[in-house]
Amino acid sequence: MSDNGNVITSSWISVSEESDFPLQNIPFGIYHMEGSGLRACSRIGNTIIDLCELSKAGLLDPTCQELFSQSTLNAFFAKGRIFVGEIRQQIIALFEASNATLRDDEALRKQCLYDLEAVTLAMPVKVENYTDFYSSIEHATNVGTMFRGADNALMPNWKHIPVGYHGRASSIVVSGVPIHRPCGQTKADDAPAPEFGPSRLLDFELEMAFITCKENGLGNPVPIAEAEDYIIGMVLFNDWSARDIQKWEYVPLGPFLAKNFASSISPWVVTLDALEPFRLPGPVQDPPVLPYLQSSGNKNFDIRLEVDIIPESGHGKTVSRSNFKYMYWNMCQQLAHHTVNGCNIKVGDMYGSGTISGPEPDMFGSMLELTWRGTKPIEMPDGNTRKFIDDGDTVVMRGFCRNDHYRIGFGEVRTKVLPAKC
Amino acid sequence: MSDNGNVITSSWISVSEESDFPLQNIPFGIYHMEGSGLRACSRIGNTIIDLCELSKAGLLDPTCQELFSQSTLNAFFAKGRIFVGEIRQQIIALFEASNATLRDDEALRKQCLYDLEAVTLAMPVKVENYTDFYSSIEHATNVGTMFRGADNALMPNWKHIPVGYHGRASSIVVSGVPIHRPCGQTKADDAPAPEFGPSRLLDFELEMAFITCKENGLGNPVPIAEAEDYIIGMVLFNDWSARDIQKWEYVPLGPFLAKNFASSISPWVVTLDALEPFRLPGPVQDPPVLPYLQSSGNKNFDIRLEVDIIPESGHGKTVSRSNFKYMYWNMCQQLAHHTVNGCNIKVGDMYGSGTISGPEPDMFGSMLELTWRGTKPIEMPDGNTRKFIDDGDTVVMRGFCRNDHYRIGFGEVRTKVLPAKC
Repeated sequence: MSDNGNVITSSWISVSEESDFPLQNIPFGIYHMEGSGLRACSRIGNTIIDLCELSKAGLLDPTCQELFSQSTLNAFFAKGRIFVGEIRQQIIALFEASNATLRDDEALRKQCLYDLEAVTLAMPVKVENYTDFYSSIEHATNVGTMFRGADNALMPNWKHIPVGYHGRASSIVVSGVPIHRPCGQTKADDAPAPEFGPSRLLDFELEMAFITCKENGLGNPVPIAEAEDYIIGMVLFNDWSARDIQKWEYVPLGPFLAKNFASSISPWVVTLDALEPFRLPGPVQDPPVLPYLQSSGNKNFDIRLEVDIIPESGHGKTVSRSNFKYMYWNMCQQLAHHTVNGCNIKVGDMYGSGTISGPEPDMFGSMLELTWRGTKPIEMPDGNTRKFIDDGDTVVMRGFCRNDHYRIGFGEVRTKVLPAKC
Repeated sequence: MSDNGNVITSSWISVSEESDFPLQNIPFGIYHMEGSGLRACSRIGNTIIDLCELSKAGLLDPTCQELFSQSTLNAFFAKGRIFVGEIRQQIIALFEASNATLRDDEALRKQCLYDLEAVTLAMPVKVENYTDFYSSIEHATNVGTMFRGADNALMPNWKHIPVGYHGRASSIVVSGVPIHRPCGQTKADDAPAPEFGPSRLLDFELEMAFITCKENGLGNPVPIAEAEDYIIGMVLFNDWSARDIQKWEYVPLGPFLAKNFASSISPWVVTLDALEPFRLPGPVQDPPVLPYLQSSGNKNFDIRLEVDIIPESGHGKTVSRSNFKYMYWNMCQQLAHHTVNGCNIKVGDMYGSGTISGPEPDMFGSMLELTWRGTKPIEMPDGNTRKFIDDGDTVVMRGFCRNDHYRIGFGEVRTKVLPAKC
């Protein structure tokens, strides 16, 4: 097999064809086991690789031991894309089928490798700042159509600006952490005053997020041609949203309590290097964008996305199948725009794409769109229906790329919704 | 003299009557001198007190040396209001006129005390998350009147919710750090398309901000009666705003690049303990607010606020005199609202009040309001006028409380505006 002229190699760790984590992925994460602290790891198949132990054994660049013994990947990512890429190549080399160093050293293998089932994955980075964009034209059009009618669906600024806003960094949690339905103020259209109680319209938003690994310094815009130097990789992102709280609060300063009760991410940072074979051109942007937003080359990625809802009964359903390639604004445009006024970005900042809806109704990235404000409930396998998310539901998002040779994926972000506490 | 029955003591460090920093203030900050690292400090009059050296000399609680040798106050504040209050009392005792310990030890004084002119003040905290509120009814009414007319000035949610939104933590800088006029997209009402260039309508916003010192944990609202346990103190806050960028970008998700190029704060965290004598009741809230927002006791503070504009010619002018007491929503209400959905707050989070305008036209807290969108330019002493802020202008904000016995103040936040770099 070959890919871009290279022979496709496999690992001495067995990897199923349906795994998101072949030798060509080598994502980065943070894990711990009972009684031990947080440490950096990677993954091949269902095997967790303790990168700190690999470093201790002298199998990686000597500076890595200190970086990989930390409880987040921030310091590692701060070394930059080139360094991270070199370490990733060192890891790939170690696990190639032909490399006997670790393969044939049982004692060392026991120190460095663990079964996925034996570990707990944690937040990969300390999220320093979090920004959410609104960059899917299908999503913006759907929401605009529902709230303002088809003729005024897109705001006048939408095709000129990758619209974004600041979100809450502190409440971003990792896959597996359950969340509570939020409480807050809502007001029915015909009610004289608002009321307080659990949100009735809890929704997911299917997003991806990228993470930065380089700082620009206050006052120094990142030119769009250099933007990818700042982006280390991506995660799946569920931007939980309480639609009824949002409706009452968001004018004029944007969403606040409707979003900041929790956002959920997948635990693996998949590098842009690993996603390289899956680049695509983005949609044609018409009208043309201002020069500082004009990017060249293939800046979109063909990442298939799915959302499942699993009720407590266990009979779940895939309710959406979308793709990251539908994004109207790409990550380089988002970062160039974010910094064009001199705003400084930090290592560990996270940037949500905005809900990623595709052109067909079963590709929409939120219940708001999938059920069209609750007017078209989704039938579940157990005979019930869903307009939004119920207590006890587990929402699972998955994302992966595939070519003729392998599949590179993000794993999943899985979150159970517990009842409100008010 | 007496205050609440206590004798008003003075310090053996001389303090002018007009100083913001008598023995009764004892704010906390971070400083450095040429060739040395960042360390915690306080201030009496124009004397900087190195708190790390005081600790080393055994004059403060022994745990303080490690806390005060850090480059931010976050770890110190994380010890909580009671601990910080005790340390503040230990410092007050050391500097009381009658206390000979340090007063009569010249060698130790030389180690611990520095002239203000000899040091550089730095950011007092690492701002973990930053939220900006919109809690002055006069400001919200002014802005609403300008953009929607007097009959629709306040949004329907305004008297029910302390409206807020997430801002950018990374670009908050300390007094003395100059900023550049931001560049960005703007669009004239009659233009067919947006253009890129320097903002033409750069504005200040006169705000104060509070800082939190305690964490609630995700999913645990802070009850309003406990909110002050979470608030360590306050700073002056200049929420720089580019009105033309804001106008084009802010619908529907709120301000983004119009704000995140920079915000400026004063270097001293003045504790709520120091502000205690200056409490006032807030305005009557009608209609009544929901139970989770009902606070009791005096939750407003009588803090006089001023804004100067100083052109490069040096002939400046005080353009606004407002007061923190005008706030419709108090800090406890802001914090209770922020967390009522379970949003988790961190030590070092910063919360802006929103522009603090008073009821009279010379009390407005932004150029947008003072010049009523530029229709009433301000005459400057050098014969020029200002509709907004010009390149080369320095904007200075001051804040202080005063009673019959002393003045407790924040010093100033002083920022020079440099030309755009685009």
